[in-house]
Amino acid sequence: MYKLDLKKDRPIDLIALGRLCIDLNANEINRPMEETRTFTKYVGGSPANIAIGAARLDLKTGFIGKVSDDQMGRFIQHYLIENDIDVSGVEVDQTGAMTGLAFTEIKSPEDCSILMYRDNVADLKLSTTDIDEEYIKRSKALLISGTALAASPSREAVYLALEYARKHDVVVLFDIDYRPYTWNSPEETATFYNLAAEKCDVIIGTREEFDMMEQFEREAGADDQKTAKKWFDHHAEIVIIKHGAEGSIAYTKDGGSYKGGIFKTKVLKTFGAGDSYASALIYGLFQGWDLPRAMTFGSASASIVISKHSCSDAMPTVEEIESFMAEAQQVT
Amino acid sequence: MYKLDLKKDRPIDLIALGRLCIDLNANEINRPMEETRTFTKYVGGSPANIAIGAARLDLKTGFIGKVSDDQMGRFIQHYLIENDIDVSGVEVDQTGAMTGLAFTEIKSPEDCSILMYRDNVADLKLSTTDIDEEYIKRSKALLISGTALAASPSREAVYLALEYARKHDVVVLFDIDYRPYTWNSPEETATFYNLAAEKCDVIIGTREEFDMMEQFEREAGADDQKTAKKWFDHHAEIVIIKHGAEGSIAYTKDGGSYKGGIFKTKVLKTFGAGDSYASALIYGLFQGWDLPRAMTFGSASASIVISKHSCSDAMPTVEEIESFMAEAQQVT
Amino acid sequence: MYKLDLKKDRPIDLIALGRLCIDLNANEINRPMEETRTFTKYVGGSPANIAIGAARLDLKTGFIGKVSDDQMGRFIQHYLIENDIDVSGVEVDQTGAMTGLAFTEIKSPEDCSILMYRDNVADLKLSTTDIDEEYIKRSKALLISGTALAASPSREAVYLALEYARKHDVVVLFDIDYRPYTWNSPEETATFYNLAAEKCDVIIGTREEFDMMEQFEREAGADDQKTAKKWFDHHAEIVIIKHGAEGSIAYTKDGGSYKGGIFKTKVLKTFGAGDSYASALIYGLFQGWDLPRAMTFGSASASIVISKHSCSDAMPTVEEIESFMAEAQQVT
Amino acid sequence: MYKLDLKKDRPIDLIALGRLCIDLNANEINRPMEETRTFTKYVGGSPANIAIGAARLDLKTGFIGKVSDDQMGRFIQHYLIENDIDVSGVEVDQTGAMTGLAFTEIKSPEDCSILMYRDNVADLKLSTTDIDEEYIKRSKALLISGTALAASPSREAVYLALEYARKHDVVVLFDIDYRPYTWNSPEETATFYNLAAEKCDVIIGTREEFDMMEQFEREAGADDQKTAKKWFDHHAEIVIIKHGAEGSIAYTKDGGSYKGGIFKTKVLKTFGAGDSYASALIYGLFQGWDLPRAMTFGSASASIVISKHSCSDAMPTVEEIESFMAEAQQVT
Repeated sequence: MYKLDLKKDRPIDLIALGRLCIDLNANEINRPMEETRTFTKYVGGSPANIAIGAARLDLKTGFIGKVSDDQMGRFIQHYLIENDIDVSGVEVDQTGAMTGLAFTEIKSPEDCSILMYRDNVADLKLSTTDIDEEYIKRSKALLISGTALAASPSREAVYLALEYARKHDVVVLFDIDYRPYTWNSPEETATFYNLAAEKCDVIIGTREEFDMMEQFEREAGADDQKTAKKWFDHHAEIVIIKHGAEGSIAYTKDGGSYKGGIFKTKVLKTFGAGDSYASALIYGLFQGWDLPRAMTFGSASASIVISKHSCSDAMPTVEEIESFMAEAQQVT
Repeated sequence: MYKLDLKKDRPIDLIALGRLCIDLNANEINRPMEETRTFTKYVGGSPANIAIGAARLDLKTGFIGKVSDDQMGRFIQHYLIENDIDVSGVEVDQTGAMTGLAFTEIKSPEDCSILMYRDNVADLKLSTTDIDEEYIKRSKALLISGTALAASPSREAVYLALEYARKHDVVVLFDIDYRPYTWNSPEETATFYNLAAEKCDVIIGTREEFDMMEQFEREAGADDQKTAKKWFDHHAEIVIIKHGAEGSIAYTKDGGSYKGGIFKTKVLKTFGAGDSYASALIYGLFQGWDLPRAMTFGSASASIVISKHSCSDAMPTVEEIESFMAEAQQVT
Repeated sequence: MYKLDLKKDRPIDLIALGRLCIDLNANEINRPMEETRTFTKYVGGSPANIAIGAARLDLKTGFIGKVSDDQMGRFIQHYLIENDIDVSGVEVDQTGAMTGLAFTEIKSPEDCSILMYRDNVADLKLSTTDIDEEYIKRSKALLISGTALAASPSREAVYLALEYARKHDVVVLFDIDYRPYTWNSPEETATFYNLAAEKCDVIIGTREEFDMMEQFEREAGADDQKTAKKWFDHHAEIVIIKHGAEGSIAYTKDGGSYKGGIFKTKVLKTFGAGDSYASALIYGLFQGWDLPRAMTFGSASASIVISKHSCSDAMPTVEEIESFMAEAQQVT
Repeated sequence: MYKLDLKKDRPIDLIALGRLCIDLNANEINRPMEETRTFTKYVGGSPANIAIGAARLDLKTGFIGKVSDDQMGRFIQHYLIENDIDVSGVEVDQTGAMTGLAFTEIKSPEDCSILMYRDNVADLKLSTTDIDEEYIKRSKALLISGTALAASPSREAVYLALEYARKHDVVVLFDIDYRPYTWNSPEETATFYNLAAEKCDVIIGTREEFDMMEQFEREAGADDQKTAKKWFDHHAEIVIIKHGAEGSIAYTKDGGSYKGGIFKTKVLKTFGAGDSYASALIYGLFQGWDLPRAMTFGSASASIVISKHSCSDAMPTVEEIESFMAEAQQVT
């Protein structure tokens, strides 16, 4: 079994760090975006979604990030506050940066795509001076999102947050969340992902994301066991490798490997599956559940979110997940 | 009176050059954007609006510009085609540039603002290789928008289009359309606006815009007569200086000055007033109307547009303007 | 004959504007630079060389430019002052820019090359705020060098200086001096060269440089007559087209064309030929000489400079040129 | 005592990685650079100097770096080859980058300064694709220079070289060599220096350099013991902290601390002291000497170099150092 030393006496359960942006979801679905005319605005960004998901599950949640000094930035701040997320670590950019946008196109449940606006985004302006050692020290766990490593000064801010987290025994969860835009090259990406992953306790990513990180290794070959072993040699306790529709597999340092259950659901779109899975899985780790139970709980949360129009706003409560599990058909 | 030599035998009346972008207009109006949830998508950008307005008024209209290679760019292309605008001069960017966005916020009819996304925009990727001498030669008039001067390579493309237009006796209309974003400094702005204005037959701008262009002159002092005189010493035949609610004044090279009428209307928002004014005024110039008549026609068009939700999509036909004029109350 | 209205009552004869840099000339010549070990430092840059040449010929000379805030910049300032050049228009950069460097390699008199350091150079930091209308107004002639158009903010500074020069009837001399580095594209180059050349009284360049400027013209074809005619339609009075070893040809607005004589000399290197030619030719224009005489004087100056190790430091006096002409063999 | 596992059976003793540039040393010394006229060209850059020093001491030495595709780059390649340094890891840049330059000014032995040209330098174009795992695997030790961390893609190349070195048990020596130019901020600098230092066996720097690296620590306070301890908790075996004229102190993981002797010498300039010290110290480590002996040998080498005009070219042989030590007066 895994060992995560979540310090009981700390007031914050989880601090998420990274991207805060806006999703603009097409209201007229099942057609190309050229033919849609209206969009609905939601808070988005992988760590934002996970934080919102965690807060809905009653974890005491905080955020470290940076928003634009405009209507979009203020909308995000308000939404986080409404969802009981502590925003004392959310700074307002003063350089004229913009909030990142994601226009979603839902042609069919299987054919979804995103049009991203990521030039000069506020979230990547997070800097080392925005990282408060005391704030991190007061939390049990820190979730970092790989997108925050994509550019300076946010990249340095992540490494400093990791340094403080390790120094103060904060459990570090790494959601790889690799998006090719913003990065200059695959080599740059792999270099800085690896330097971050070395310092993390729990690493969650898709097989393709781990392959990206292993590009400098001659023996690279999509071998889940080897992938997990590499990180256990550093600080990792749990490595979760996602294989899409075939489900995920979790490895633990003590040699264990585990699969969770998956549910049948009516899919509207695929966005948000990973973030809802992660937040509910993390909830399970906080409860001390064994991995299969936490993973199954994550899958149930994902099944709920992919049947709804938004990602963030659709994040379920514990009761909603339990109701769903009571009624849904488990596939594996 | 003014002399504009619009060559009768040419197949295209007006080619507009410059910005093609997207307006995302808040559907829930009379509140700050933080509190709006849905937006409607329209084609936007000053020269785009003028071209659409001209086409609605049955001028044979073409466009020279560049759109992003994505859903937004394709939406713009489709909309121009639907509005009978020739898009043979509209190229598709291959560098990964984005379509510019303008989120509009309507707090009240008097308090409107725009949140612009202008980083890495496709319209400023227009380059000299996109400028076809033959295409320009086939038109009676060319409308350039100052925003297209804001950065290379679009800046060079504008100067080349101007060079071809002068070479082939195409009448050049200059809509100053100054927007501080994208420009590096006021000095840069004034320098390149002046170099363009020297080559134009009709120049339309606000008093503030002309002040910006005169910043290197010690005697600068918001003197409309002097402002107009300066450009008559180059190629200008008509200079129109807009004074907001106090109306516009047109100067002609032969010493004339003229005012047009203004109408009472129910204002929803102020966006689009200038573009609808310009397109209807240009229509008047094409009809050979005297300036007061053309200006009054322009004002009527503006009054219609500011009472509606969009800019481009609200551009009226000749019949609509005439109906409006028949019923509306003229204020001056 | 040409008409240049050099205002007699003005205290400054010639202001040169543009590049101030450092030549580092290999001391061990007739070998590749890989095998040289020591270099001698001289002031360099085409307009600097022309200004130094003009000052040596007793023209009252000033300079508008920008130098780095370091030992190289101070060396340049000192050298200009020692050569009786007014440096009140030479500003010191405060942005950390560097002085441009040119390492010269003399493999043989026919095989010379230059290794340029032009990243982040101080001369291109000249800005519109450095351009003093009063200073320009006090001069008879302004020499601009095309290299100063290569980037902002220097580009805007050149156009403003041109604007002031035209406004105050200062004769403008344009030394094309095209160097491909620093420019982003041939199209950008031609665009901004053309916008400057429109405002000049005397234009001096090689056939290749004029070809570059004519790249957007379908009928382009290295026709000297047509080239000159184009600029006479703007403000030019004299256009001089250089054909390398075959000598130069000067065209005047009234239809004249003229050639000057060339002298036999012992060539050490080819650098500096154009700049010494220009300064002595300009001297001739100031004396009111006919073009062939001024051109021959220019050729004699060039013959002297290419037989010596430096460009700037070798610029001859009137007496030296006259002595040379008395003894040298004229080839054409 | 320290434990460095230098693998005996490997063909290369030391590979240095990083900056390869040119020193241009004023020939006329004891005056400001404004008054010097000639310069002599040498190979320069801290890791280049250390490699040349190591090769002079008969270590089998290689280099991983990138040079410009011009006369300066070829001069560097030739010089390394002449000094028996393997250049199979030295690539030629194809992006138009320049060789970095350092003009040295020697006003007096105590007042020396450097004017650096570091824009667009070839050495920082080193990329991960230039790092050959097999080459690193064939060496006993790898020396990295902090300057190579200053920008991408060189930064990523350093981390990849470190990864390969650790994987194949190559001893890593880190010469901090912090130069503020090129870096964007102190925070960026500290972040990437720390991530590198975590992976090194021997770390050499000045007290000021270690202070820079500790800027995120509240308890920072120039405490040598604490500084060393921090790195022993990662991989370090030896940490050497230089205190200028007061000498250096070496700490070892087992709790030892050591000082070496210093010699009286006639100082011409201070440049090159650190590099000659490092190369001779490294030689001592290769001989298995105890630290005081290796440090004293380093000091002797430094004393020789600071009495001569160049850095690289003045690097002594074992015999020269031994002769010097036999005759020189040891001060401490």
